[in-house]
Amino acid sequence: MRAYETVLKSIEADLRSGKIKIGDQLPGERALAETHGISRASVRDAIRILDAMGMVRTSTGSGPNSGAVVISEPAIGLSATLRLHVASRQLSVADIVESRILLETWAARSADLSSDPERSAAVLRRTADLLTAMDDPGLNREEFHDLDSQFHVLLSSLAGNAVIEAMMESLRLSISEYVSESVSGDDAWQQIAEVLRAQHHGIHRAVAAGDGTVAATLLREHIDWFYTETRQL
Amino acid sequence: MRAYETVLKSIEADLRSGKIKIGDQLPGERALAETHGISRASVRDAIRILDAMGMVRTSTGSGPNSGAVVISEPAIGLSATLRLHVASRQLSVADIVESRILLETWAARSADLSSDPERSAAVLRRTADLLTAMDDPGLNREEFHDLDSQFHVLLSSLAGNAVIEAMMESLRLSISEYVSESVSGDDAWQQIAEVLRAQHHGIHRAVAAGDGTVAATLLREHIDWFYTETRQL
Repeated sequence: MRAYETVLKSIEADLRSGKIKIGDQLPGERALAETHGISRASVRDAIRILDAMGMVRTSTGSGPNSGAVVISEPAIGLSATLRLHVASRQLSVADIVESRILLETWAARSADLSSDPERSAAVLRRTADLLTAMDDPGLNREEFHDLDSQFHVLLSSLAGNAVIEAMMESLRLSISEYVSESVSGDDAWQQIAEVLRAQHHGIHRAVAAGDGTVAATLLREHIDWFYTETRQL
Repeated sequence: MRAYETVLKSIEADLRSGKIKIGDQLPGERALAETHGISRASVRDAIRILDAMGMVRTSTGSGPNSGAVVISEPAIGLSATLRLHVASRQLSVADIVESRILLETWAARSADLSSDPERSAAVLRRTADLLTAMDDPGLNREEFHDLDSQFHVLLSSLAGNAVIEAMMESLRLSISEYVSESVSGDDAWQQIAEVLRAQHHGIHRAVAAGDGTVAATLLREHIDWFYTETRQL
């Protein structure tokens, strides 16, 4: 086992046992190095890896609040990994798109508005607000994509499976640059955005009406259409 | 951007453009540090992260063959990330199990034996060999789990989506220790293994007969049964 793996295993064990929780600050480099009998360089390796996996947030600078804080943003780590494997052509964009369709249509069919009506109503209000924001023709592309991503992730949260949500978001993030590269010119982009807006409203209506089957069909068409328009698979 | 991210981005770009391919050796630390104008410590950070993501294999030692070789094993990186987020309780074992069922039943329904009959026949022969190996009562638990994992991944490869395969394998790996912890005693384990063997044979027969619907139903029962037996969700 490499030295940094000792630290990762120990942090995993401490997370499992509840000794470390989200929001906690990890012990400093020196303390971790002493505890595990390894070099400070190996401790830094472990912290960098945790950072890349979306498990800690490290701040630069020094002082008592400069350590690594435990967070949990699985989609960050998953998408960073997927991106590189897509770049190496071991995973294809077509397979990523097919997987995204599988996860999102499952989430639409599994959405259950009645199990927690208040929460569902809040999600539907927030997703409606995101659609209104996306209707603004003055948005630039990056702003649009950011709202678009929030819309899909939030809507799929109605299915109540955080793993599917994280995987869905990571699939999307892992290929976003392939899409961005392919649409050149603001005119072409504005035309695409117009269609996306209409599709989003349709998906939202179907989910709000509790019709998971229709929502799933519309989502499949929406995702298929987008990737066909924006690149050659 | 952190210094190590510069290296990751540049390696991603080189993979995309084909300048670096799987099997290639990365330039040495000194060369990468000079190219990017960063410290060798930051280069090492990047290499460690690539290693944790299943993107390179690093050998210890020195000499001309001691550098990092580009590989692509997405399931390694994905499962390492999922494990930690499960440990932090941000992702639940129940959600992982539900996701595993979704992906495996999709793969069973999407298996297409006719598109490449020779390859399909080869996969079915190799999975049958794995079942024969698993029938050996002298196997220890680790050996059994290893063959079991190969069986599931190989069978699902008939659906032809490498992303689903990688995610499926990573879900399984990310919770394997939770399962291992819960079954104590070899007697209890032997009884479970007996049921798993019978279920695997049934799944294999359904896939070989081209009946994706039955295979999907059997897979769902198999996965559900296993996690219910081996731990409290």
